Amino acid sequence: MKTVPHRTVGRLTLYWRTLRDIAREDQSHIYSHFLASRCGVTAAQVRRDLMVLGYTGTPARGYDVRKLKDHIEAFLFPAEEQKAVLAGVGNIGRALLKFFTARRPALRIAASFETNPDKFNRVIQGCPCHSIEKAEGIIRDLGATVGIIAVPDEEAQFVADVFVASGIRGILNFARAPLSVPPDVYVEDIDLAMSMDKVAYFARQSLKSDRSKAVH
Amino acid sequence: MKTVPHRTVGRLTLYWRTLRDIAREDQSHIYSHFLASRCGVTAAQVRRDLMVLGYTGTPARGYDVRKLKDHIEAFLFPAEEQKAVLAGVGNIGRALLKFFTARRPALRIAASFETNPDKFNRVIQGCPCHSIEKAEGIIRDLGATVGIIAVPDEEAQFVADVFVASGIRGILNFARAPLSVPPDVYVEDIDLAMSMDKVAYFARQSLKSDRSKAVH
Repeated sequence: MKTVPHRTVGRLTLYWRTLRDIAREDQSHIYSHFLASRCGVTAAQVRRDLMVLGYTGTPARGYDVRKLKDHIEAFLFPAEEQKAVLAGVGNIGRALLKFFTARRPALRIAASFETNPDKFNRVIQGCPCHSIEKAEGIIRDLGATVGIIAVPDEEAQFVADVFVASGIRGILNFARAPLSVPPDVYVEDIDLAMSMDKVAYFARQSLKSDRSKAVH
Repeated sequence: MKTVPHRTVGRLTLYWRTLRDIAREDQSHIYSHFLASRCGVTAAQVRRDLMVLGYTGTPARGYDVRKLKDHIEAFLFPAEEQKAVLAGVGNIGRALLKFFTARRPALRIAASFETNPDKFNRVIQGCPCHSIEKAEGIIRDLGATVGIIAVPDEEAQFVADVFVASGIRGILNFARAPLSVPPDVYVEDIDLAMSMDKVAYFARQSLKSDRSKAVH
């Protein structure tokens, strides 16, 4: 199996969404530099990324918008519905259930798990919630391959272990804890607090830089 | 002003949180390789990152946990309260209000903005919500420097323009739209759909790889 770099896959999803928007605007062809500028990357990057698809445009007219979109879909999205599960139905967990239910028909969050008994055996945001103790059986029965971790930091590794033991191969991790998983399991960390701290830091630096310019 | 790379700042916030946890465990000193393994990076990386603080440990005992934590705090966090605003009080916006209100005393989300009149002049998750049309005056009065964008993709650039015109210098962007801002404004993009697509893709690849091994 040819391995495609993580960032390339991320950019392909961005191209796909941009092409979807462009297709709605009734534009039939697009040049790589135009797609690039809509996505905030360079044209050379776009051409390099699209090489993994084995689809090329023509110099005169660029890429056929619909064909390119179809090629990316075939590469990126599952032919059959893929199932995901979510652990932790707190604020972030509920928002994610709403967000992904509205957007992703090919990837369905089929079950959620909690340690809080008040939430067991209820349907929350359209998704049945179970005790985390039942996770392994439920995940295996569903054949789910993707797990979302939105539990408190100190519970994240425990949940990751349960997920891996149940056959989960990709984890989206919102906990602030580096997860230890086998090499065939992919983890994508989203660290909201770290992102916010970075933004706040650079905002202050930008102001300080103004002030030092004003003085000198 | 010395410019510190974005990733270094991100890792410093991670070290800070880890040191805070370690301080609670009553451990007084820590070696760089131990801090590194708790944070999922290399010891060499930790030592390089900590050089920006001008604080060094001793070879025999490693770093003093509390002193190192204080140095990172002084570097990373504002001496005075820093104010943020949020545009878009939908599912993600509400979850962010709850999330950041609970966690970040030094950075306060002081106002939120909406285009939906039903939400104007209400307090949502402890934060007053106003019409986006009033944003510039309110942001200037507050002296807010950080803006969070959680509006639909097609409204994101409009909000970014309002934020920049109002003095915002750092933006946390949850919309799937590359924002165009002046070079002195820092943007951190969090693209939940892209992250989920990547996780789903690599989960499928991991399974395919198993199957091809089973065949050969």
